[in-house]
Amino acid sequence: MHKQITSLQNAAVKRLLQLQEKSRSRKKEGVFVIEGQREIGLAVKGGFRIRELYFCPALFSSEELQSLKGRIPSAVDITEMTGDVYEKVAYRGSTEGVMAVAAAKDLSLENILNLGPNPLILVAEAPEKPGNIGALLRTADAARVDAILIANPRTDMFNPNIIRSSVGCVFTTPVATGTTSEIIRFLKDRKIAIYGAALQASVPYDSIDYEPASAIVVGTEATGLSEEWLENTTQNIVIPMQGEIDSMNVSVAAGILIFEAKRQRGFK
Amino acid sequence: MHKQITSLQNAAVKRLLQLQEKSRSRKKEGVFVIEGQREIGLAVKGGFRIRELYFCPALFSSEELQSLKGRIPSAVDITEMTGDVYEKVAYRGSTEGVMAVAAAKDLSLENILNLGPNPLILVAEAPEKPGNIGALLRTADAARVDAILIANPRTDMFNPNIIRSSVGCVFTTPVATGTTSEIIRFLKDRKIAIYGAALQASVPYDSIDYEPASAIVVGTEATGLSEEWLENTTQNIVIPMQGEIDSMNVSVAAGILIFEAKRQRGFK
Repeated sequence: MHKQITSLQNAAVKRLLQLQEKSRSRKKEGVFVIEGQREIGLAVKGGFRIRELYFCPALFSSEELQSLKGRIPSAVDITEMTGDVYEKVAYRGSTEGVMAVAAAKDLSLENILNLGPNPLILVAEAPEKPGNIGALLRTADAARVDAILIANPRTDMFNPNIIRSSVGCVFTTPVATGTTSEIIRFLKDRKIAIYGAALQASVPYDSIDYEPASAIVVGTEATGLSEEWLENTTQNIVIPMQGEIDSMNVSVAAGILIFEAKRQRGFK
Repeated sequence: MHKQITSLQNAAVKRLLQLQEKSRSRKKEGVFVIEGQREIGLAVKGGFRIRELYFCPALFSSEELQSLKGRIPSAVDITEMTGDVYEKVAYRGSTEGVMAVAAAKDLSLENILNLGPNPLILVAEAPEKPGNIGALLRTADAARVDAILIANPRTDMFNPNIIRSSVGCVFTTPVATGTTSEIIRFLKDRKIAIYGAALQASVPYDSIDYEPASAIVVGTEATGLSEEWLENTTQNIVIPMQGEIDSMNVSVAAGILIFEAKRQRGFK
């Protein structure tokens, strides 16, 4: 038999909620919460260590549980929850019926290893919305970029909204965070050309040869790239726009730029 | 002096809230609400008729009001609101201080006129989220496509979340809605090639020549394009993906496809 939580007053309920809602709680414990079977599977595949598993039998069948158990270490603590307890701790409502607590990874730049000879890297400076970060991560996964680097992040990457909107792609692509200075240093040390998306002093994005080692850098929708980035790009690039409004969604712009590089590379 | 609304009990408060929240109310009156100075300006520029203007003097200065008045018909009814009334009716909270009621446009296909000789058209089938529709509209504006057509829409285009997430681009691009059958007929009648984004029976998107009249059609993230579309495409196209998850955000995918067409056309 599994352990059971049947009361909303159980201390575990408060802890799980805090891990979902508070970056500080995640940092303090060094763990985060993953909801959903597919997301948990992607995290396991991405090398994340699952520590605890919670499920609601009314929503998650014993067959599904058996199948999931086969993919996680046998020592993992498994706890059953009643429907009202699960609904209380679930960030997404009660659609999934299963969640895990996993150990956070160290996302510092020095953990980005094994870059190929001509890496393609996506950099986003201070992206505002978890939904945009999720879409960037999905694009990074689809393009299988060598890494996605988040400069001056405004939230930790294990925010439940990022996990959800990335549909688990936060686990599938090498991700690192750092200050703008650290990331510029990282790229320059490795002789990776820096192409910053900017309106000023820029050339059309499709005039660049992205086959050598390249980093494509996008800024915020509100203010674009910071001065520090603009002073350190190899070349600024722009997507020629002809509309009333000179702005696209940041994840759309990043997708257009990254896939132009992929196209030039024959999608290899 | 302008008319004033100082009480939350005023009937106008309830009406404005219903226009924001209920598609049915918008349809019944044939009007919708636009929040924000820039959005109102874009609507005027896009040929929408402003009928009523509401502002909160604490948030929207008399200079701003004068400037806006210069761009709308002098017969427009202008009403002042106290801060608490404005906050109550504003969908975005009280950040803007100005909103308008405008006449809805007829978005039927027959109003898409004056297509150039080789139009580029974006079609989205049943997009789920207002945020995605907003991003699609921003891409359509940036690319200055000849039209964006929404097949089997799940919400009306004058939903406040669409206006907000499109940052007003819903007013700047020719938009029409219709059933999938109607849109297929519209495209075939005009001999516009139909390129459907689909995994099945598809070629890489960059192998197509988009210089002739082309429509790029994207489906939902959950189920892709319907059978009806798949049976009627000139060719299915796919963005080659190499990640763990064969799916991108729908507005990102549409951006990549549309800008490949733009690139081939020399961004003209």
